[in-house]
Amino acid sequence: MPDREYGEIPGYPEGQEFQSRRELAEAKVHRPLQSGISGAKDGADSIVVSGGYPDDEDHGDEIIYTGQGGRDPNTGHQIADQELTRGNLGLVRSELDGRPVRLIRGSGGDPAYSPARGLRYDGLYQVTEHWHDSGRDGFRIWRFRLVKLSSSPRQAVAPAAQTIGPAPRTAYNGNRLVRDPSVPERVKQLHNFTCQVCGIRLLSAGGPYAEGAYIRGLGRPHDGPDHESNMLCLCPNDHFRFDAGAIYVDDGMVWNALTDSVVGLLRTAKGHEVDPGHLRYHRDHFAAAEPT
Amino acid sequence: MPDREYGEIPGYPEGQEFQSRRELAEAKVHRPLQSGISGAKDGADSIVVSGGYPDDEDHGDEIIYTGQGGRDPNTGHQIADQELTRGNLGLVRSELDGRPVRLIRGSGGDPAYSPARGLRYDGLYQVTEHWHDSGRDGFRIWRFRLVKLSSSPRQAVAPAAQTIGPAPRTAYNGNRLVRDPSVPERVKQLHNFTCQVCGIRLLSAGGPYAEGAYIRGLGRPHDGPDHESNMLCLCPNDHFRFDAGAIYVDDGMVWNALTDSVVGLLRTAKGHEVDPGHLRYHRDHFAAAEPT
Repeated sequence: MPDREYGEIPGYPEGQEFQSRRELAEAKVHRPLQSGISGAKDGADSIVVSGGYPDDEDHGDEIIYTGQGGRDPNTGHQIADQELTRGNLGLVRSELDGRPVRLIRGSGGDPAYSPARGLRYDGLYQVTEHWHDSGRDGFRIWRFRLVKLSSSPRQAVAPAAQTIGPAPRTAYNGNRLVRDPSVPERVKQLHNFTCQVCGIRLLSAGGPYAEGAYIRGLGRPHDGPDHESNMLCLCPNDHFRFDAGAIYVDDGMVWNALTDSVVGLLRTAKGHEVDPGHLRYHRDHFAAAEPT
Repeated sequence: MPDREYGEIPGYPEGQEFQSRRELAEAKVHRPLQSGISGAKDGADSIVVSGGYPDDEDHGDEIIYTGQGGRDPNTGHQIADQELTRGNLGLVRSELDGRPVRLIRGSGGDPAYSPARGLRYDGLYQVTEHWHDSGRDGFRIWRFRLVKLSSSPRQAVAPAAQTIGPAPRTAYNGNRLVRDPSVPERVKQLHNFTCQVCGIRLLSAGGPYAEGAYIRGLGRPHDGPDHESNMLCLCPNDHFRFDAGAIYVDDGMVWNALTDSVVGLLRTAKGHEVDPGHLRYHRDHFAAAEPT
């Protein structure tokens, strides 16, 4: 769908209400008449949250959204694993590209945040994470974290794009965790800023650079601890691959790169003990279900 | 200084006024009595902006701050090049580590933002970029972009840390540029998500990932164009090294990694023309003045 339109649709500001899916589709705010995700492998531009999936969680500025597929159209029960294809793949692509996703809430959703009737465009969200889980019916579901983008007239822009380091990222609203900055500091120091996977030590005139990567994410639903045992010292490239599930670490502390079948022993540093339980959680929920 | 304290000092909220540098130092909001930067190679925790450097620019939520050193203490003129040492290096370290810097404005600064008398703690800023330039007196100065962190009681947290991709980054206030999202999209597509420096193509189950790196930054003072000719397709690691000046590209389109003396030909893609003038600007202002 080369005519996919990202961002706000002119004439339909945040808060705009719609009586029906047809009206929503005609406004091009969410084009599909049935599917909750408007997306394909090129990206996803909008989703509808309307309570269809029991695993969805609506926290207002943050939504944990269930992917599509694998459901019995009659009972609504999950009868097969969800695949990372179609709309699900679209949401990942929008995550990778930093594209905003329009969020539409329907009256069937969480009453705390949903309209009493019809549908409502509730602004732009960013997909910040995806993982898989076993849904209530025992089959694999894909889950996506979406975080609301600032709705101020000021356009949000990627802080990092003008600065040292990584990908364009936009500013978020939403509930924010207070993190202990000494945890990544210490882990990076212990490893002397050397990546535990590939061994690179990125140098600049101002000094070395590495990232502290949480193994099991903080906050819901992963609820990992803000502790050194839950962190790896990684270069930005391997941080991406770890978070994307393209690298996992097994119980023997061997890292595996799924996408190119490379393996190696995780580098260690005296004083830094990684908890294998957190690595297992990462494998179970982030490592690609099907190696690609 | 292992007892350096980052972030807000309890008891001294944003807006707190001080009569003198001594009072400021006793409150530990800014410890040095003379120096504008409280910092060393381990990091910098506070700066004072008080109009001492003619090259400083105060835009409120964004400050372009001149480093220390090379000045005649009697005339205030620059009489030698500034080095990337001491407080200057501290500001880079805080940039690399994502540490907040307390900003104190003195009455000598830009009247639009500065207190009429004495000094005032104006909240936490993040160093987002550093580069070098030729100052008004013809000697090299180091410049730092500082952007105000959200002052809401909600703690700012790194969006990226919970998500695919890179370093913990905090949310910014400040003037934000509207960027054309199609520029990085197209550059990445043309290169098929392959890094123009190292040739890596980072893969995940959800697809490939690369970053569009502006060569000459958008916005003041670089004022680079939001155009494909001003962008490289890079992996996150080389994006870091390029922005940090550890990699530059010469007129022959050869990239040079200053920190490990590796060179190579910049990868090209049909339909993507890079402007050598922007690469020259990057060399002149970002490439490390002294190879390390």
